[in-house]
Amino acid sequence: MDIGGINTAFGMVDEQGDLYAESVVSTRKYPLIDDYPAYVAELCDAMHAMAGSLSFEYELAGIGIGAPNANFHRGTIEQPTNLWKFRPGEGHPDESRRIFPLAEEIGRSFPGVPVLMTNDANAATIGEMVYGHARGMRDFVMVTLGTGLGSGFVANGEMIYGHDGFAGELGHTVVERGGRQCGCGRYGCLETYVSATGIKRTVFELMARSNTPSRLRGVAFDDFDSSMISAAAQQGDLLALEAFRFTGEMLGRALADVVALTSPEAIFLFGGLSKAGKFLFDPTQWYMEENMMSVFKNKVKLLPSGIQGKNAAILGASALIWQAEQHR
Amino acid sequence: MDIGGINTAFGMVDEQGDLYAESVVSTRKYPLIDDYPAYVAELCDAMHAMAGSLSFEYELAGIGIGAPNANFHRGTIEQPTNLWKFRPGEGHPDESRRIFPLAEEIGRSFPGVPVLMTNDANAATIGEMVYGHARGMRDFVMVTLGTGLGSGFVANGEMIYGHDGFAGELGHTVVERGGRQCGCGRYGCLETYVSATGIKRTVFELMARSNTPSRLRGVAFDDFDSSMISAAAQQGDLLALEAFRFTGEMLGRALADVVALTSPEAIFLFGGLSKAGKFLFDPTQWYMEENMMSVFKNKVKLLPSGIQGKNAAILGASALIWQAEQHR
Repeated sequence: MDIGGINTAFGMVDEQGDLYAESVVSTRKYPLIDDYPAYVAELCDAMHAMAGSLSFEYELAGIGIGAPNANFHRGTIEQPTNLWKFRPGEGHPDESRRIFPLAEEIGRSFPGVPVLMTNDANAATIGEMVYGHARGMRDFVMVTLGTGLGSGFVANGEMIYGHDGFAGELGHTVVERGGRQCGCGRYGCLETYVSATGIKRTVFELMARSNTPSRLRGVAFDDFDSSMISAAAQQGDLLALEAFRFTGEMLGRALADVVALTSPEAIFLFGGLSKAGKFLFDPTQWYMEENMMSVFKNKVKLLPSGIQGKNAAILGASALIWQAEQHR
Repeated sequence: MDIGGINTAFGMVDEQGDLYAESVVSTRKYPLIDDYPAYVAELCDAMHAMAGSLSFEYELAGIGIGAPNANFHRGTIEQPTNLWKFRPGEGHPDESRRIFPLAEEIGRSFPGVPVLMTNDANAATIGEMVYGHARGMRDFVMVTLGTGLGSGFVANGEMIYGHDGFAGELGHTVVERGGRQCGCGRYGCLETYVSATGIKRTVFELMARSNTPSRLRGVAFDDFDSSMISAAAQQGDLLALEAFRFTGEMLGRALADVVALTSPEAIFLFGGLSKAGKFLFDPTQWYMEENMMSVFKNKVKLLPSGIQGKNAAILGASALIWQAEQHR
């Protein structure tokens, strides 16, 4: 299952990563904290409906969930930015009430079935390990480039969740002190530079700083989509190319530090921005090598994810279960 | 065994961390690449002499070695900065020849005895896990503050060596682009700010930048020892106090990023500079909390190491063996 701000998508996946059925319920229909119980009820009903609709025999090995702010250890979604909020104008409500024990509640509806939950970047990381190009790798890093920047770290063949269950927040390491304002309340986080919104901010900064002509100057901020930058770069737009170079520089520098800490075999790039291909990969690779300690140079592979595609989020979540089975 | 640039110290340690015998051979006596075989021969002789001198029965469970640039996977010391160098003036010699398979060679002298090797910071980390305050912790970080800054990361109860065996180089993550020149050939590495030499550089920078009076202004760079800064801080010297505040700021910011990546239960500070106590811990803790994502705030302990003392390096190296025994 993949819980997003708009929809919750779920499907039936086997050990090879084949998807046999899929369905969806609206998350957006339940925006407030008081809506949460009704959301859980509709979700469980829809899952039972899908499970009952299948024409073949199967054993349900478990339910894997990818969700924002999910805590692996506790099976909770904790203070998610865009889900089940307090009614606007409630003053200063108690944020500690916004902890949602979803794994336990789904488990009650599917007795005896293990339910595991982690954030979407960690789920994608496990998906890469179980179905993708990281099969057999014991030490690697996954970077997911969507609206924000997520990441997952695998060391000694195991996902790093950390003591508190929230490890892997590469997007919220500070790369520019006093830099761009981040949604997390701080300044200069990597994801304000390297993500779909990050590169869009870079384009607008470049339009302000330079006189370089660009077709992108004709689009308003609110109408702007990061895929326009790839399209412009493809046609040789200098401002778009400079935006990718800068994005690659920021990512490459950050990855050089990641390598110093974890010495991975490979780093995978996943998600929308990574589809820009060489425009992103070439400068990232160059700046990563340029900024690495010599002992690490020319050893770490920078690769596109092997689980791209429309069902990547569901596949990643399902991999949580197959990964846990292997560890039993 | 702890291999330093001046001496190689070794001892006989039991599972509780009690030291029964210790001895030392000179490393400095063998400065050149051609001296290395004679060094190994003297070292093995000295170990056999110590082993034969004991008046009680024992079983030798293994030989653990902490050494600069040691590779855990390969049991080698690779291109160490201060050991077994080429004769000066040899032009551009082939650095790939400076790979020393010490674990295998010692193993030949002690048939059937496992020999494990890692760098000194990783050895100290395992020492903390086996004998120190990290007993029972599955996720923690160790920061060793000596001439440089070393670190070790433990996740899921296991040391992170990484694919290439060199993980844990927090001291060589870049905290100030184009900052201070580092011995590794790059600029702005954390250890150029946070280490015995780093805080010394900070004091000299502050003497240049400000007019703050300080007793430290009477000491030449070459005569300067970082312990003088603690002594001055103790007496209320404002420049020394500012040097600690700045050092704590740089370390605290770096640790906030470390927490975002690995979500540890605790971070331990070890080594000379950590003995400055509150002068270092107070600003480090403050800046760490100040710069952390809210989800991590007030959760991570910042603690002094539990294995400080003159035999810490030998203890750390010996812990490699007990740790490996537990994993069998």
